[in-house]
Amino acid sequence: MRVLVPFDATDPKTRLASVLSKAERDAFARRMLADVVSVIRRVGGDPEIVATAPIDADAPVTVDERSLDEAVNERLDESDSPLAVVMADLALVTPDALESLFESDDEIVLAPGRGGGTNAFVARHPDFRVDYHGASIRDHRAIAAEVGASLTEVDSYRLATDVDEPDDLAEVLLHGEGEAATWLREQGFELSIEDGRVGVQR
Amino acid sequence: MRVLVPFDATDPKTRLASVLSKAERDAFARRMLADVVSVIRRVGGDPEIVATAPIDADAPVTVDERSLDEAVNERLDESDSPLAVVMADLALVTPDALESLFESDDEIVLAPGRGGGTNAFVARHPDFRVDYHGASIRDHRAIAAEVGASLTEVDSYRLATDVDEPDDLAEVLLHGEGEAATWLREQGFELSIEDGRVGVQR
Repeated sequence: MRVLVPFDATDPKTRLASVLSKAERDAFARRMLADVVSVIRRVGGDPEIVATAPIDADAPVTVDERSLDEAVNERLDESDSPLAVVMADLALVTPDALESLFESDDEIVLAPGRGGGTNAFVARHPDFRVDYHGASIRDHRAIAAEVGASLTEVDSYRLATDVDEPDDLAEVLLHGEGEAATWLREQGFELSIEDGRVGVQR
Repeated sequence: MRVLVPFDATDPKTRLASVLSKAERDAFARRMLADVVSVIRRVGGDPEIVATAPIDADAPVTVDERSLDEAVNERLDESDSPLAVVMADLALVTPDALESLFESDDEIVLAPGRGGGTNAFVARHPDFRVDYHGASIRDHRAIAAEVGASLTEVDSYRLATDVDEPDDLAEVLLHGEGEAATWLREQGFELSIEDGRVGVQR
């Protein structure tokens, strides 16, 4: 299956700016991307990075400077075979987790993200389109219903956990199995526990 | 299988105090408990509430005023058959999610919670004990290894999402299928989206 991986190559992971420099955010985002691409390949998918600027990566890269919605919807429009989209910041992803997304036969398979996002999906219906603004999982359910597509949602913590904020780094340290987790440890990040709450320190 | 559900009947969900009164927190916590107990029964488990004070509930209640660790470890100590513990604030729990916990045959089956917690587990090894302080999932992995127990972790967003803070209420509105979600809506809570972030408003 063709699997698009949208990637912000220009200014990635801005909400990590309090704990990582611009160069570090670039490096960390590329490690997460590499992990996602690697897992897609391991479960038999064909990854295709859709980036906002040219990057070196272990997969074909198409540069598309438009919004995420426009870039994804044009490809949904042009595709007449199943198409998947997996976010590039799923640092907890494993082959088992991604297989749970790919193994369903439903026309639309959604993997919700924390905070109402849609972290990954498979579309096998010609009329499905995305709308990533706001609580996109709710909108994507509604769009699937509008076009009359059968719908499944995948219950995976690994797919639900995108890495946006400093607290999310704790999840990477606790559960990540790829290059991104290794990189974080190499930069000196470790778990910290204050007042019973788990975070990270460096 | 015997399934313990620890419940703070005295002052539950204190981190929701900014959005719910004490009486509302009591009511909401009991709705979540009822949802958890109901799903345990639907998948064939025998729920047993371990509460800090007497409560009315649709399951046997034992009052135990000790710490969570002491209350659970004494029962692990005394049990010679498989024992499960499921947190009372898993408002997103469904039969499928809980079955994923129960269907593994490993001696220890852990369901991680966001922020390093352990939201549910099954123990089939005589020497496993709990330590819920700090990043308990890490400690429970270590304890399982120390006692030589086989270990599986369940990848479920529904089991990983315990409801502690106001932002977690958005998850209940987006994904909850039980009484707790209904109750929240009846109290006037709905999703709010500000600067692309999803929360709740009343």
